[in-house]
Parts: sequence; structure tokens; C-alpha cells
Amino acid sequence: MVTGPGTSAADLLAAADRGSVRAIARLLSRVEAGGRRAAEVAGCLTGRPRRGVIVGLTGPPGVGKSTLTTAIIARLRAAERRVAVLAIDPSSPFSGGALLGDRVRMGEHSTDGGVYIRSMSSRGALGGLSAAAPAAADLLSAIGFDDVLVETVGVGQNEIAVMRLADSVVVVLAPGMGDGIQAAKAGILEIADVLVVNKSDHEGAAVTVRDLKSMVALGRTGTADPGAWRIPVLSTTASTGAGVDDLLTALAAHRDQLAAHGGAQRRRQQRAEVAVQAVLLQEIHQALTSAAGQSQLERAAASVAAGTTDHHQAARDVLHWLLAATG
Amino acid sequence: MVTGPGTSAADLLAAADRGSVRAIARLLSRVEAGGRRAAEVAGCLTGRPRRGVIVGLTGPPGVGKSTLTTAIIARLRAAERRVAVLAIDPSSPFSGGALLGDRVRMGEHSTDGGVYIRSMSSRGALGGLSAAAPAAADLLSAIGFDDVLVETVGVGQNEIAVMRLADSVVVVLAPGMGDGIQAAKAGILEIADVLVVNKSDHEGAAVTVRDLKSMVALGRTGTADPGAWRIPVLSTTASTGAGVDDLLTALAAHRDQLAAHGGAQRRRQQRAEVAVQAVLLQEIHQALTSAAGQSQLERAAASVAAGTTDHHQAARDVLHWLLAATG
Repeated sequence: MVTGPGTSAADLLAAADRGSVRAIARLLSRVEAGGRRAAEVAGCLTGRPRRGVIVGLTGPPGVGKSTLTTAIIARLRAAERRVAVLAIDPSSPFSGGALLGDRVRMGEHSTDGGVYIRSMSSRGALGGLSAAAPAAADLLSAIGFDDVLVETVGVGQNEIAVMRLADSVVVVLAPGMGDGIQAAKAGILEIADVLVVNKSDHEGAAVTVRDLKSMVALGRTGTADPGAWRIPVLSTTASTGAGVDDLLTALAAHRDQLAAHGGAQRRRQQRAEVAVQAVLLQEIHQALTSAAGQSQLERAAASVAAGTTDHHQAARDVLHWLLAATG
Repeated sequence: MVTGPGTSAADLLAAADRGSVRAIARLLSRVEAGGRRAAEVAGCLTGRPRRGVIVGLTGPPGVGKSTLTTAIIARLRAAERRVAVLAIDPSSPFSGGALLGDRVRMGEHSTDGGVYIRSMSSRGALGGLSAAAPAAADLLSAIGFDDVLVETVGVGQNEIAVMRLADSVVVVLAPGMGDGIQAAKAGILEIADVLVVNKSDHEGAAVTVRDLKSMVALGRTGTADPGAWRIPVLSTTASTGAGVDDLLTALAAHRDQLAAHGGAQRRRQQRAEVAVQAVLLQEIHQALTSAAGQSQLERAAASVAAGTTDHHQAARDVLHWLLAATG
């Protein structure tokens, strides 16, 4: 089937189900565009099972997250699983055209039809998380990918928020990072389901592992599912693949644990909250920055400038307009 | 009059009009708190003349903005003008308690009853400009201060946005800053009504002044009122007070220019737009993070997690609740 701008979301979904990379790219672009087109895609997914497992990978820059992601993809492909990668980057503004670059980035998998790689901005409307990131992860988990790896490139609040999308979160550290204190300060240890010390062949790796194990034993991490899951601390050398099998075993164990204790449902709920809030802020932002929204704002401000009302009352007037405009 | 938490905004305003520093501090704290108390203060100000001139001072760190502000205060006090200073800082979260520190910061004026100094965060709800900053500047201009100096400490987008509150914007640079290129990149030259090269006794000052004059001649700055005002480039040495009189003369000339060409009205409109939008985002944020808002969000997300609706439709449901709740 030839797809074009006029192709319905339902037709694109059917093509994506048959493995069309082009259809997947178009669906993701509509999700990124937001508004009516994104809503149409979301509507078509209602009731569809989400077969794909969403795994988040985060950590400070320089720990080898991309190399580790590449090593994980190799293992998953060897097991004949279809893999999608969402690289979430605070600096990438619109990434529809970045697809080629993304494929090049993870070189060895770029010609493998069973791997789909896309980068996306974490930055959404009104300073929050992009509405596209949760919607894209959801879409990929619904169109036949067995694994959706969400990798963050930055370490800001939005990159931490994006991890709330995942069924399992892998926090990647490296030796000699002040024993994870830096990571703890940034808040990323709090969201870990599995802790990985990558570059385990580097000096100080054993010390970092020991310190992280003490932190875990003291209950200083893992607020995600307190009590139910003991966070493993693993060592990997992504460049050689050492330890990656153990990481996949730990992720499978976490998945089993979630399934056995209602955690999968909790994560689904959490993911839906993130998605709903992101769309909400996007809708408000779009209404306010539209020509009609700007003219409402100008009119309200003119009354304030003229001294006939105050800015609180004027804000209320704009809110009422917003209700009518978005309803 | 003794004022307490139960004192009405109208009574506090009357006390502020009689010069009570305590009443001013209480009013500003209510403005910072947002919500109903801030709305009450704003309501009391409707129709009141804004006598105070709002002057913004911004520029990269290290150019001597605070020293220049102190020198300006000295000149204004010598002319028996009452001066308020709002120091807008991206890092200060809540600053009600920072008053003592603020007063210490501008040492020589700390015991002068004709000078009121307060710091405030630039960071507002949903990543935008704090609703408190525009409301505070407006309040101070309405309660008897002749001059309201708004000084930014940081150089982010919010610090640039805060300058949209001012009648006149002074951009302060120093010699050896890559000829203002750095400032141009940050977007701060665009908002200048007056350009100042401070530390004019330092090496390279003449070159920086010359380069800035070329930029102005080429029309590369001053989008605020294009054509109507030729941006002066001045030299100051804030530590000795050299050039500060010329700066005040330039500011008076800019004020006359605004008055003669309808610019004062345009600035008032712009200020009102900033204030209305900031309050709007604050109201939305407060409603969404309230217990009722959180429970609405959870309910909507539960339908998404159960597969009975999609996140766009769920966001619409929350939006309807939100507008009913804030209306």
C-alpha cells in the first residue's frame, strides 16, 4: 500500500502491523505533531493489547548508555525479538527528519528490519514532558514490537519523568563517579529497578558496586515499588558484552515480580497519568498560542492596562474562553 | 495599626500608603503565595494610578549589575525619590524569608526608609515566568514608590521575559565579553532601551562601546520600539559612580519618548499580557496539583490503563473538570 498525508491512522496502523517501516515513521510523526492527528492515532489504539515491554535506560552522560543499548539490542535480536528504541533528547527540537541520523547512530543494527530506532525531544509544552514521548512509547508497544527501549540522552527533570513510562528502569552508572552520589543528587537512583555499573573493567568498579549495594541495603533507592523488589546491582562491560545476559535475566525477573504483585497494572496507570498530563498541557499551550488565544489574551490585558479589571480576573476570562475553545 | 494574617488587603494597602515596611512585605508575600490572597491584592489595585516608573536592569553575570543598581539608588535618593528594588533570581525558590539577606546585600541603603529591597524567584508554574514577579512590580509601582528597579540575577529565558515588565530596559555589559556577541546570542541585546558598558575603566572598554554603537547603527538591537528611539550606548564605572548621571538622563529621555509616542501605553499593555498569562498558568498548575485535580487525573488515567479510552480523550475530560474547577 502506498501511504500519503491523507492516509487514515487506521490504514497506517494496518500497514505498521504488516511491518512497514514507513508507516511506523508516519504514525510517530503524527504523534509528534500533536493535536487532531495525534488524537486520531491514540483513538485507533483504544482497546488494542500492548504486547511490548517498555524498558527505560537512564544515567549520567559518559557512562556508555548507547553502547549498552546496542549490546542489549544484539541479545534481543539473537532471541528473535523485535526491538524499538526511543532516544529521548532534551536538545532535539523536532526530530521527524532525524531518522537517518538515528539509524546511523546505532550502526550495526541500522540495516536490521527487526530494529526500529527513533529520537524524540523530551521538551514539551509549558516546560513539561513532551506529550509525544509517552504516546510514542505506547504506540510502539502496541504495533508488534516485543521490546521498547527508551533511552534518555540528557539528565534533566524531563529525562527522569520520561522513565515513569517504563515497566522497568535501568539506571546506568560508571566507576569513579563519586560513588553514585552525583546520581543520587540528580534523583536518578530513586527511579531504578535495576542498577548497572558499566565499564566494569575500569578502575574502581568494585568499589562503586559495593557502595551501591550498601545504598540499596539501606533502602536508599527503589521508591518505585518499596519492599516488593530487591534492586540488583550488576556489572557490565557493554563494549565486550560482558554482563549483558545477567542484565536481561534481571529485567525478566523484575517483569515476573511486577506480574505477580500487581505492579504491571500500577506501571500502566502511572504511564497513563504521564501521558494524560502531557497531552493536557499541550492542548492548553496550543490553545493559548493560537491566533484566537493570543487575541483573547490581548483583549484581557487591554482591560488590565486600562485599569478596568485586574490580572487575576482577566486570567479567569481567558480561562473561560479556553474552556469553550478546547471543549 | 497592628497587621496580622487576617488583615484585609485594603487595610494593608492603606498601611503601605502610610509607608509601613511591614505592610509592604505582607502584601508582597500574599502576591507570592498566589491564589485567592494574590487575587484579593490585585483586586484592590484596580483603577489605582501606577505612579512608579519600572526600570529593568539585566545582563550577563559579573558585569556589576548590583553595584550599578546601588549607584543608581544613591542618585535617586539624593533627588529624594522613593525607590523599590526587585531582585529576580532563578535559583531562589520562595523568598519571603530572604528579606534580611536582601537588605544586607545592598549594604549602604539597608537602613534607608526610602529604599525597599526584595528578592523573588523568576521560576513560575509550568516552567513559565513566576506570576509573582509582574504582580510585585505592579504593586510597588502603585504604592508610592517613584522608581521600581527590577534587577535580574540570572540570564535565562525567564530573566529576559521579566524585562517585558519594564518601562525602560537597561542592558549592562562589561569590556572583554566578546564584543557583546555573547549577549546577542543570549537574546538580551534585543530587549535593550539603553546599553551600558560598565567597568569602563577596564581595558577594552572603548572597543566594546564602539562595537555596540556599530550594532545599534546597523539596527541590530532595539526591536522593542523600532524606529522611534535611538538606543544610546553609555559608559559607567559603577564603583566610582562615573557615568551614572548620564544613565539617568538617558532613562528620563526614554521616558519622555515613550510618553510622546504612545509607547507608555504599549508597555502597559505588554506588562498586562505578561501578568495575565503568568496568573493563568499558575491557576492551571494549582488546580492540577490540588488533591481534587490529582484524583481527576488518576481517574482519567485509570480509563486509559483499562483500555476504555485514549489519553487524548482522557485529557479532554480533565480539561473540562479543570475549567469548571477554576471558573
